[in-house]
Amino acid sequence: QDEETLRQAEESHRQDSTKVLVFTLLLTLTILTIWLFKHRRFRFLHETGLAMIYGLLVGVILRFGVHVQPDVSNSTLTCVGKSRPSSLLLNVSGHLYEYELRGEVDSRSSDNLPSVDMLRKATFDPEVFFNILLPPIIFHAGYSLKRRHFFRNLGAILTYAFVGTVISSFVIGLVMYGCVALMNAIGQLDGDFFFTDCLFFGAIISATDPVTVLAIFSELKVDVDLYALMFGESVLNDAVAIVLSSSVVAYQPSGESSQALDGRAMLTSLGVFLAVLSGSFVLGSAAGVLTALVTKFTRLRDFPLLETALFFLMSWSTFLLAEACSITGVVAVLFCGITQAHYTYNNLSAESKSRTKELFELLNFLAENFIFSYMGLTLFSFQKHVFNPVFITGAFLAIFLGRAANIYPLSFLLNLGRTNAISLNFQHVMMFAGLRGAMTFALSIRDTATYARQMMFSSTLLIVFFTVWVFGGGTTPMLSFLKIRYTHTHTHIHSYTHTHTHTQGMAKTVGTVGRRDTAWLFRLWYTFDHKYVKPLLTHSGPPLITTLPACCAPVAHCLTSSQTYEQQDSDSELILNHSPSMLYSDLSVSADAVFDPSSSVQDQPLLQGPTHSVLSTEESPIVPGPVPLPPHSSPLSEPLRLRL
Amino acid sequence: QDEETLRQAEESHRQDSTKVLVFTLLLTLTILTIWLFKHRRFRFLHETGLAMIYGLLVGVILRFGVHVQPDVSNSTLTCVGKSRPSSLLLNVSGHLYEYELRGEVDSRSSDNLPSVDMLRKATFDPEVFFNILLPPIIFHAGYSLKRRHFFRNLGAILTYAFVGTVISSFVIGLVMYGCVALMNAIGQLDGDFFFTDCLFFGAIISATDPVTVLAIFSELKVDVDLYALMFGESVLNDAVAIVLSSSVVAYQPSGESSQALDGRAMLTSLGVFLAVLSGSFVLGSAAGVLTALVTKFTRLRDFPLLETALFFLMSWSTFLLAEACSITGVVAVLFCGITQAHYTYNNLSAESKSRTKELFELLNFLAENFIFSYMGLTLFSFQKHVFNPVFITGAFLAIFLGRAANIYPLSFLLNLGRTNAISLNFQHVMMFAGLRGAMTFALSIRDTATYARQMMFSSTLLIVFFTVWVFGGGTTPMLSFLKIRYTHTHTHIHSYTHTHTHTQGMAKTVGTVGRRDTAWLFRLWYTFDHKYVKPLLTHSGPPLITTLPACCAPVAHCLTSSQTYEQQDSDSELILNHSPSMLYSDLSVSADAVFDPSSSVQDQPLLQGPTHSVLSTEESPIVPGPVPLPPHSSPLSEPLRLRL
Repeated sequence: QDEETLRQAEESHRQDSTKVLVFTLLLTLTILTIWLFKHRRFRFLHETGLAMIYGLLVGVILRFGVHVQPDVSNSTLTCVGKSRPSSLLLNVSGHLYEYELRGEVDSRSSDNLPSVDMLRKATFDPEVFFNILLPPIIFHAGYSLKRRHFFRNLGAILTYAFVGTVISSFVIGLVMYGCVALMNAIGQLDGDFFFTDCLFFGAIISATDPVTVLAIFSELKVDVDLYALMFGESVLNDAVAIVLSSSVVAYQPSGESSQALDGRAMLTSLGVFLAVLSGSFVLGSAAGVLTALVTKFTRLRDFPLLETALFFLMSWSTFLLAEACSITGVVAVLFCGITQAHYTYNNLSAESKSRTKELFELLNFLAENFIFSYMGLTLFSFQKHVFNPVFITGAFLAIFLGRAANIYPLSFLLNLGRTNAISLNFQHVMMFAGLRGAMTFALSIRDTATYARQMMFSSTLLIVFFTVWVFGGGTTPMLSFLKIRYTHTHTHIHSYTHTHTHTQGMAKTVGTVGRRDTAWLFRLWYTFDHKYVKPLLTHSGPPLITTLPACCAPVAHCLTSSQTYEQQDSDSELILNHSPSMLYSDLSVSADAVFDPSSSVQDQPLLQGPTHSVLSTEESPIVPGPVPLPPHSSPLSEPLRLRL
Repeated sequence: QDEETLRQAEESHRQDSTKVLVFTLLLTLTILTIWLFKHRRFRFLHETGLAMIYGLLVGVILRFGVHVQPDVSNSTLTCVGKSRPSSLLLNVSGHLYEYELRGEVDSRSSDNLPSVDMLRKATFDPEVFFNILLPPIIFHAGYSLKRRHFFRNLGAILTYAFVGTVISSFVIGLVMYGCVALMNAIGQLDGDFFFTDCLFFGAIISATDPVTVLAIFSELKVDVDLYALMFGESVLNDAVAIVLSSSVVAYQPSGESSQALDGRAMLTSLGVFLAVLSGSFVLGSAAGVLTALVTKFTRLRDFPLLETALFFLMSWSTFLLAEACSITGVVAVLFCGITQAHYTYNNLSAESKSRTKELFELLNFLAENFIFSYMGLTLFSFQKHVFNPVFITGAFLAIFLGRAANIYPLSFLLNLGRTNAISLNFQHVMMFAGLRGAMTFALSIRDTATYARQMMFSSTLLIVFFTVWVFGGGTTPMLSFLKIRYTHTHTHIHSYTHTHTHTQGMAKTVGTVGRRDTAWLFRLWYTFDHKYVKPLLTHSGPPLITTLPACCAPVAHCLTSSQTYEQQDSDSELILNHSPSMLYSDLSVSADAVFDPSSSVQDQPLLQGPTHSVLSTEESPIVPGPVPLPPHSSPLSEPLRLRL
């Protein structure tokens, strides 16, 4: 019997290995194809779309091509019980064996058990997405946020992400509720579908995807403000969607007394929503601040490996701590990433700067491609698809209405207060490029127990496929049609070692970019941050002694490291050289100069900051730093001087 | 009931997060302390020892400090069965729920279940070590093997690792068998302990640890040949120990008809041993060669991110493929690492070279510290310790005898054939510094079901603690006592950005380093590799067209990339500049110049190859490249010319 157990354990391990192997090979194949596409300059299909196609192929093969012999030895013992505990003890002649709950087995499909087993083997625990794959993606998004443009458009971004997503969720929820009522009327509904289910669907499907937006837009080098709006919104609305959907779930009716959400529950829901969101924000920022302090006051920078490891561990701890506190780790990690980039990054050694950046870039790349190929796979390997034409049509209609109800009215309201209006063309692009992706998928696969959830999951898959393939592929024509010009970056290898980027065609913007959309509140924070927070947490900025009032001099002395005086903000030097009039402008420029979202697109040699890589931007001699910003955004001194 | 399940799932997720969080915080603490020790130049305790101490502390806290309220809702249902299947179906009013086997619960300790549960929560599935933590460590070891010195001493290394480990296993096995017989006689044995168990113990405890050896020796900068011998042996004997122990397990007697191993079983075991070892070797090398070909014939180097991702995935696939084929992944990954470093590394872009190196360095660092702190934790958290004084004393005696039976006789035999004898002092160091570490731990925790295994595990833990703390800490005094001089590297920060290494005192070797210990077989392989394999797989070395006979010209043309002609082996240039007489010597030098095992010790600024880091070796102006090789090893031209 011992040998039997050993054999079973080995067999199960072998199968697990094979499962992961299939995915690694899939990713390898995807990488090679991505390279080929980039090399041959095919642009009609995006890499995430590519990963999905490979996933689909493997799904088809697993579903129809593989016939597994039923494993007799793996026979199951059936117990009868009154409840479903999380663990079960089996008594075999005095020995107790513990069993852990794995999930419900669908009795419908239990007649063809071997193939089901094979397909189930190819699926992952949905928690893998939330605990392993999403955190690096979201952290990377926060860590590489193009901060200057992000902060310049913060008001608009927050409006779209918070107000807009809530509006969109409700619009979609209502449309779907109508749709479900219709289905009920024509008898197409085979199970329960509550109003909260509709709201849940609205919440999960409202999250636009930063992954694809980042990939497509940064590769195309569109207008930076448009990019900042799109990317900022999509990053933050992921957070909103997570928190919103879990608030809805908390008030899921358990019985039939369901349809109406009473007012108090709504209010509690709102309270939970705000508490979780602000909790995650505080936790994430606190972890970032703590890391900044540690890296500032220890001389850890002498040992880049230790420093990188610490950075990685602290960021990961943020996620774990948030999960342990029952708030959302993914959201905490987002804010942690932003804080790390804003403060900690300045304390790191040059070595660690590139190391951390490259590490998270790699993790992000792998996780993202894994998710998209897994999505493709799921279409065929998932056992309980419920494809309902009415629901699917309704869902497509709903997401358009929801997106429109988010973008157009809010843009109108925002334009009332903005000096640089968000042009109608920009609004169309934002409407059009609100792709659904990784987060929507992860949220919908998390729970597929009920009929309603299964129908949602199947529809979600189709929506993701459609938006990524059609809208993702259609972004380039769309942009040319709307006359928002963009620049392709091409790479040529001139010599064996150094890569030269050369930008073809100069970009010109259509939308008018104004300079005063930062609200007074934001400007207040900015000054405060610049004068006190940044000098406190990092080695850059003006020394605290000069900014704090005289009475605090001893404290200031104590908190000001000797490096503050010695060390110029090395990143900003690049740009300062070109416009020496900007005093202290380093603050908003520093990290921008090094973080370029496009670095995750592999279409250009990786930007390494001042330390490596001879990178000559041939046709755009205006661009000073390592980032080939579109020239129209280069009058750096102007918007910056306004703030000081 | 649905809500109950959800709540349970959330609770279990929260606990999992907390568990991992504890370890991340533990690692963070370890990193900070390591930094402090390095900063203050404390040398009495090594970092792995430090990680263990922190682990011990947390273990003590978990064991005696935390009192968990028994979780009532988590009550278990007990079934009675005749066999122990791998999965169990529970029928609750028509719904089928699947349960998965988690392991045997010890009925002895089931009376104080809550605390057991808490402690069990803090333990990991042993397979985590084999599937997640060991592969990066072993790959890194292979990838950073100091190849020149490794190949120069290959004969001796193979002898120690293969013959020596087998001798050691048998000696230890026999001593322990005597010990067990003694215990049986005095009535201290409470369970079965077969001869195969003794052999198994011999196999797992014979694996000396590359992690600690690498850390201690490269930090001390001892004689490179001694280092190569120690490190090469410890890397390869891990492989031998894994394969040997699994061969022994395959012939574990199932009943009482055990004591004698019959001849045929022994022979089969040997066959399995050789088959698995050579299978892993072939698979690992093949994967490395494949990666080399892919990176050579695609222009993937234009996109470093893709390249790095591909490299990572291919290396990981090797592990998975080996596991899926039921041969040992860890061994395959070792050979894969060596091949990747020897061939693929030369095809990578400068960017990817540093990226891959840094990535695996980080993974290695994290995994290694995790294992050691987990080891510390296990001493208190493991439930089924069997500490038997006789067995432990016997085990300590046995490992000394086993190590002595490995080193001294084999060194004597080797010295008969070597021109540069392995001096007696070197032999003492090798005897003394055969620390036990991660691999021994991982092998012994893998199966702790039987009484014999539990006793082995407990004794192994003590042996690892003792060797790491006492021998690890005692290496420095030992080396001075034996007059094997070494150099400490200190780092001083002269300016804010660049780190200068400055070596105190010049190293002088005591052992005479000869130049002709490469056997003719090896030299044959070397020439073949240099002329055909390397040009075929990489962009370096002489073009195939010049080395292949004329009849193969078309094939050669086809296989020779244009880069071969253009591209100098950029790594070798560093050294070639200093001794331009060496034609084609790049082969043995190339990767050496960039891979320095000491780079995982964080005691010096990371060596980045030619691309980054201004590193001025102040007091040793002889040293040419980025690696501050001890000067006595620098007459490069001589040993190399001998080979050509």
